[in-house]
Amino acid sequence: MDRIAVDLRVTGRFITLEGGEGVGKSTQARRIADALAARGIDAVITREPGGSPGAEAIRGLLLTGDAALWGPRAEALLFAAARADHVEKTIRPAIASGKWVICDRFLDSSRAYQGGASGLDDDDIMTLHRIGSDAFLPDRTLVLALPEDEAAARADARDGGVADRIGARDAAYHARVAAAFARYCAEDPARFRLIDASGAAEAVTARVMTAIADLLP
Amino acid sequence: MDRIAVDLRVTGRFITLEGGEGVGKSTQARRIADALAARGIDAVITREPGGSPGAEAIRGLLLTGDAALWGPRAEALLFAAARADHVEKTIRPAIASGKWVICDRFLDSSRAYQGGASGLDDDDIMTLHRIGSDAFLPDRTLVLALPEDEAAARADARDGGVADRIGARDAAYHARVAAAFARYCAEDPARFRLIDASGAAEAVTARVMTAIADLLP
Repeated sequence: MDRIAVDLRVTGRFITLEGGEGVGKSTQARRIADALAARGIDAVITREPGGSPGAEAIRGLLLTGDAALWGPRAEALLFAAARADHVEKTIRPAIASGKWVICDRFLDSSRAYQGGASGLDDDDIMTLHRIGSDAFLPDRTLVLALPEDEAAARADARDGGVADRIGARDAAYHARVAAAFARYCAEDPARFRLIDASGAAEAVTARVMTAIADLLP
Repeated sequence: MDRIAVDLRVTGRFITLEGGEGVGKSTQARRIADALAARGIDAVITREPGGSPGAEAIRGLLLTGDAALWGPRAEALLFAAARADHVEKTIRPAIASGKWVICDRFLDSSRAYQGGASGLDDDDIMTLHRIGSDAFLPDRTLVLALPEDEAAARADARDGGVADRIGARDAAYHARVAAAFARYCAEDPARFRLIDASGAAEAVTARVMTAIADLLP
């Protein structure tokens, strides 16, 4: 048992950032990596869909073209394929080498977007993750949440109102996404933390670092 | 019950052609469509991966690039995604309109290539098909089989020895594929027919038409 405890201390951690469009996930990913670096922890920032050459090729299929190009089933399978490649080629090797991985969106986005908001069964999405990636889960998932109007304003300001294939869906869709994320936080408080993403980026980072404090060496 | 019998008569049939590289699947698909046309039956010829705009985009990812680009799990998920789109957009609408669909490769190629030959669990591949396509199955699956050396010679003659990402795998891999197809025929004789694909194309077509005679109106 002593030997296992020693091994765990040199293995990296896997942190995912989730939430709707415009809540500040990519900004916080960079700020978390900086905060970890200040503590001497080497962190890799990655994102989904993408994060490995094969998965980036799938990203191109998923985020361009007509909003109705893929039905929710094909879309869920494509995300699971990209994730399988990303976990195998990027995430697991980095964690095994002792690095922390900070990932902008992961499994729970598939659950919220193709499941909660598009009607696919949550068990089926978890089954795709088992077949694709051995059900590999984050050590901590941070759901960044903003009031709906504030998130929409931020997303519009960021991209001039031009969103990608999925971001372009209607307000009712995005409300279902937000409700799904809140539900996962309530259902699995060991893995999830719901983070207030309003206010200055520095304040949000402070909340995030408190939410992962128990994982720090 | 009479009403149901009438509806069945105007619904098309779904026939898939399976087997290794170079056994004559695409030639027989065309010849079956011609033989059906001579009987007044309108048939659509299609193929996997591909057969719909979304699925053809996935085909590009699957069949080009390095042979090791995708692990077997990502590959199985990509094939299932392409199949979900193909079934939804092309196959089901054609059958519903009364046409027969003749498809060059389908689910059983995923079972044989990613399952039998690459080690994925057959139950998992069937689960992907359930999630992606409601486990939609062909009315008849024709496995075209040739002695191994004859198939290799035909494949080499056809493409000058330049095969695609999957065709380029080694002889042991293709032997496992052939063994898997033979096993499916033995396990499910109601859906499968093992067809001797040697000799002239006319003779093979005659064997195929005998193997689907019970489905003809």
